[in-house]
Amino acid sequence: MIAFQDDEHYLLRNEMGERLYHGYAEGMPILDYHCHISPRQIWEDARFDDIAQVWLGGDHYKWRLMRACGVDERFITGDAPAREKFQKWAETLGCCVGNPVFEWSHLELKRYFGFDGVLTPQTAQEVWDLAGERLASPEYSCRNLIRRSNVRLICTTDDPADSFEWHRKIATDPTFDVRVVPAMRPDAALRIERTEEFGAYVARLADVAGMPVASFADLCQAISARYDVAASLGCRASDHALDFVMCEPASPGHVEHIFQLALEGVAPTYEQVLQYKTALMRFLAREYERRGWAMQLHFGCLRDNNRTMFERLGPDTGYDCVSNYAPADQLASLLDMIERDGGLPKTILYSLNPADSIVIDTVMGCFQRGPVAGRLQNGSAWWFNDSEVGMCEQLTTLANQGVLGTFVGMLTDSRSFLSYPRHEYFRRVLCGLLGEWVEQGKYPADEALLGSIVRDISYNNAVRYFGFDLDEE
Amino acid sequence: MIAFQDDEHYLLRNEMGERLYHGYAEGMPILDYHCHISPRQIWEDARFDDIAQVWLGGDHYKWRLMRACGVDERFITGDAPAREKFQKWAETLGCCVGNPVFEWSHLELKRYFGFDGVLTPQTAQEVWDLAGERLASPEYSCRNLIRRSNVRLICTTDDPADSFEWHRKIATDPTFDVRVVPAMRPDAALRIERTEEFGAYVARLADVAGMPVASFADLCQAISARYDVAASLGCRASDHALDFVMCEPASPGHVEHIFQLALEGVAPTYEQVLQYKTALMRFLAREYERRGWAMQLHFGCLRDNNRTMFERLGPDTGYDCVSNYAPADQLASLLDMIERDGGLPKTILYSLNPADSIVIDTVMGCFQRGPVAGRLQNGSAWWFNDSEVGMCEQLTTLANQGVLGTFVGMLTDSRSFLSYPRHEYFRRVLCGLLGEWVEQGKYPADEALLGSIVRDISYNNAVRYFGFDLDEE
Amino acid sequence: MIAFQDDEHYLLRNEMGERLYHGYAEGMPILDYHCHISPRQIWEDARFDDIAQVWLGGDHYKWRLMRACGVDERFITGDAPAREKFQKWAETLGCCVGNPVFEWSHLELKRYFGFDGVLTPQTAQEVWDLAGERLASPEYSCRNLIRRSNVRLICTTDDPADSFEWHRKIATDPTFDVRVVPAMRPDAALRIERTEEFGAYVARLADVAGMPVASFADLCQAISARYDVAASLGCRASDHALDFVMCEPASPGHVEHIFQLALEGVAPTYEQVLQYKTALMRFLAREYERRGWAMQLHFGCLRDNNRTMFERLGPDTGYDCVSNYAPADQLASLLDMIERDGGLPKTILYSLNPADSIVIDTVMGCFQRGPVAGRLQNGSAWWFNDSEVGMCEQLTTLANQGVLGTFVGMLTDSRSFLSYPRHEYFRRVLCGLLGEWVEQGKYPADEALLGSIVRDISYNNAVRYFGFDLDEE
Repeated sequence: MIAFQDDEHYLLRNEMGERLYHGYAEGMPILDYHCHISPRQIWEDARFDDIAQVWLGGDHYKWRLMRACGVDERFITGDAPAREKFQKWAETLGCCVGNPVFEWSHLELKRYFGFDGVLTPQTAQEVWDLAGERLASPEYSCRNLIRRSNVRLICTTDDPADSFEWHRKIATDPTFDVRVVPAMRPDAALRIERTEEFGAYVARLADVAGMPVASFADLCQAISARYDVAASLGCRASDHALDFVMCEPASPGHVEHIFQLALEGVAPTYEQVLQYKTALMRFLAREYERRGWAMQLHFGCLRDNNRTMFERLGPDTGYDCVSNYAPADQLASLLDMIERDGGLPKTILYSLNPADSIVIDTVMGCFQRGPVAGRLQNGSAWWFNDSEVGMCEQLTTLANQGVLGTFVGMLTDSRSFLSYPRHEYFRRVLCGLLGEWVEQGKYPADEALLGSIVRDISYNNAVRYFGFDLDEE
Repeated sequence: MIAFQDDEHYLLRNEMGERLYHGYAEGMPILDYHCHISPRQIWEDARFDDIAQVWLGGDHYKWRLMRACGVDERFITGDAPAREKFQKWAETLGCCVGNPVFEWSHLELKRYFGFDGVLTPQTAQEVWDLAGERLASPEYSCRNLIRRSNVRLICTTDDPADSFEWHRKIATDPTFDVRVVPAMRPDAALRIERTEEFGAYVARLADVAGMPVASFADLCQAISARYDVAASLGCRASDHALDFVMCEPASPGHVEHIFQLALEGVAPTYEQVLQYKTALMRFLAREYERRGWAMQLHFGCLRDNNRTMFERLGPDTGYDCVSNYAPADQLASLLDMIERDGGLPKTILYSLNPADSIVIDTVMGCFQRGPVAGRLQNGSAWWFNDSEVGMCEQLTTLANQGVLGTFVGMLTDSRSFLSYPRHEYFRRVLCGLLGEWVEQGKYPADEALLGSIVRDISYNNAVRYFGFDLDEE
Repeated sequence: MIAFQDDEHYLLRNEMGERLYHGYAEGMPILDYHCHISPRQIWEDARFDDIAQVWLGGDHYKWRLMRACGVDERFITGDAPAREKFQKWAETLGCCVGNPVFEWSHLELKRYFGFDGVLTPQTAQEVWDLAGERLASPEYSCRNLIRRSNVRLICTTDDPADSFEWHRKIATDPTFDVRVVPAMRPDAALRIERTEEFGAYVARLADVAGMPVASFADLCQAISARYDVAASLGCRASDHALDFVMCEPASPGHVEHIFQLALEGVAPTYEQVLQYKTALMRFLAREYERRGWAMQLHFGCLRDNNRTMFERLGPDTGYDCVSNYAPADQLASLLDMIERDGGLPKTILYSLNPADSIVIDTVMGCFQRGPVAGRLQNGSAWWFNDSEVGMCEQLTTLANQGVLGTFVGMLTDSRSFLSYPRHEYFRRVLCGLLGEWVEQGKYPADEALLGSIVRDISYNNAVRYFGFDLDEE
């Protein structure tokens, strides 16, 4: 019987998997091209009071599990003492057999705190003390957590209306050699359906961009100006959260009309929302293509489904779910329209619904073209799919429908400084899968060739794809 | 090579799977919280003439397989002699490699009739004789079949307009200590689209409830009155068959208007149907919440697709299929609306389409809250998914997205008194899966902890969840 | 470690899998009941210049992979020299770990050219020379490639307006004993939405049928006449490419009206398109039923998504993707309508979206009836699903929901004379899967019974199902 998360064998399936992981994947650095950590915390080199803060402070994956176990909200997002919250978490975790959070949590305890056991109500105090001791040390500041995780570059997620203050400061600090660059997420500019917030956002953008935004054309110009600033700070990627990828073209005049109505506070119709988003996405795609940026589209998510809790806690608190509306024809049509507008930029598609994976993979095949290898990508298993099952499905479907060797690989998508072991997890899953295919006689047992594919997917493909000035390994 | 359905190893994958099944799952009693067996047959302690009657008399799973093999309908639901029907079934079964009915059938032959071989055209006579001999014995009456299956409690499926006569009689019979309680399935009250049947149903309900039902408010009151009676007989659960979970809110006045039209025999529009169902489901959910009942929603099924055969044989004769219309946003919106109305009751969601599983699991996560552990449940793999593949998918998705340890586990959903081995089948699949996760290093090899989870899912969670007055084991 | 595509073990999983493949499947002949090879090339017994021509000349599977690797179109469909194209393909292939084309390509190199190694940039010249030498020999003409693949019968794919000239010639040639029969694909007659092409097609059909086609009734009569001709040449099957299976009934007068508008060049509305297609499909189904032909419906595909490349290269050049719109209710309704019209013909349903598999399998169960075993079939994993993963899913879902033993098995769906090893691939996957089920104790280790099922699925079921005058083996 294999030991729990045994370093040598965990997730690796057979000897080839082990050779690939330990020989090629394990030592590769990390390029975390999409996450939600705070550049300010990095600049300030923040420290943590205890493991409850670092683990339970903002992790809605864990909150959902505690709620599913019937834990009272007071111990989740409420005012219960940190130690009590941690105890509730320890009580919850054992029931989560088969859940990736069980695995990630223990991998984090092992990698950051050297705890090799199992977190249970009985061991909770030991873990609390051990983690507390380490977190008290400067060796466990944000920057040092990043350093010890062998990270070379981090793309944060930023609104074009942000000041980029922290990115500027980090860039000029010679004591921190991990690069931290912004990635543009202009969701607020797209969300014309949130009538009240939209006008305020446009005003803020105008202010930051230093120009009036009185028309759709102004809006585009203001975003473009902010993109220039982001580019000067090393930005190479954008990111969009869409309910689904829509394609509802309209004339420029009609789009301008919709925009004017929105500025006047008039709620747009559903069709107008789609028309506006389509038009803005087409503009933005041109911006990405001419800058050589990658465009990331996240879709297939329904957000803030529990209004009671939304009113109490706000967004990103664990009340989102998988959607099942993502029309393939609209996705294909929008990509085609962008290709004809001026060329499809490098594009990474992520759906929260694993049933969309084969749609994404086969749509991608319709728009691939040189000179970029893997111009279109099916993004790494996202959020609810970020598990061995989800990763295997994403990798297997991608391999079946496209060219796995060009895949840009894993990202954390995380708000936490402790989540880099997800890259280890991903690499183990990848190597295990490749090892299995070899064992089934589906691919030659050519360790050098496979090892090179593993290194590429672990790191080098991302360096090349985004065009960061980093050495390949 | 493992022997066919070998007791020790069958479906158990490895030693941990075997230890969990034989050490923890095997001896647990059964709480069959959803099935379609007849309380009258239990009261009358019915006996069976032969295996054709008990196996082929009402089992549309088997009918479908025979039809797919080209067997003439005369040997399926027609007037062919029982022995000839059984022969056709024996000819069919061998071709059904990979079909769960092949496995269930042989498990039933082994567990109830001690037949260890394979049913083929050649062994059909032997099986016929062996089963016939046993069925002739009083040891094989309905009650004794239930007793020998280690069943503690059965929830039947009952219309609120039913008389509950048989439940009353069984409850007062000291010679039968298995509890048989009703579960409420008010489908007829929801099916306003069946204009002709609807009026008659309302009249019948009014009659049984002893009150006039001339308005939507009356209807609600009458159902509530019947629920009181069911509650007095131990009812703790309801069940709904919906095409999909809809959310089309309307004003009370408009709902009343739709109801009045229906009473006048006017066919409602599609939108009105959805509005009426939404309104009644919201009312019923409040009833469930205030009584502490669990609300079961079955959806994703298209019924009675073959009109020729429907006209000949009626419903539930093997002409249903999986639907692929189940909008996640309507499901999430209805649950949210109910939560705001007065609190979401314990809710079990079942979709016939396995692609809905991740939607269900992630919607659930949006409404989980204490004090109930697992307030929302993704119901056990249902109907067409009631196979090793379907169970593994349901369990794996649930484990990945939620807390497997709180799962209420298996039910038979059956019309037959011989189908309790499906609980054995489920438990074997569960233990095999857990064993595999341990072997992959994904969970500690902690037999006591895993054994406790296995016992809970096999029986204890259901006792706690539904709130039956039964001892945990 | 198993060797790459090792004859003895490849894809076979365990000893039972090996016994079934080598003892029962391997020697069976091939009945390729759906493909796109050219009858003219068979008649002319065409030869090939080099492996680039035979492999890269028309294979858009390979083109897509090259594009995904960033290869310039000049080396794909452009004017680059054949040897350079082949080099680019060799550079691409190694990255395609996990892609079925990697496996098929090497199986073809092994089976037709005796090359046991791996195609890489380094071995490309060796493969080029080896294949070139063999292709130069008359032993590698089209007919000899077919002969050495143990093919008994081929159904090509033909428009009713075709002349059938090549089928006639082949049929009367005593030197070629493989039967080559047409299968009817009247897609052009259904595509009323392509207004410009439609009128021209109707004119061509009228011309070939030797009758005026001035009404919908004429159209039906003309198609029927062409079907008579196809029947006289041995046709036993049709095939339809539908976006989805629609059911939008309309009166005969209204259908005639739509047809007249189309003849006048008026573009029909979306609803009219569906009404017209529904009406024509209903007519055609009656034609199939009365002739005993099988009706094949392919759906779930979005075609020609990249308009830029469509304008440059035309259809079937690698720009198609999986659709996710295939309403189960319309599929079920159309089948029901056809059943009531005059009886559902033998029908094979293929969806490009694997999520539709369980819908197809369960809809099928609603219309199965004697005397034909497996009247409705879930067609073999199609196109993008034509991989081990796709085949296992199709076979497993089919086995779970229906009767695997009646499955008509594999087809190539190919434009190439080198793709018969896909039958080997399929048979290996099938035997491996059956072996695994036995090992899990889910089916008895009865080699004779399983071997008979394997032989049936490999060949005999197709002989029986289509009703070809061939001996079973």
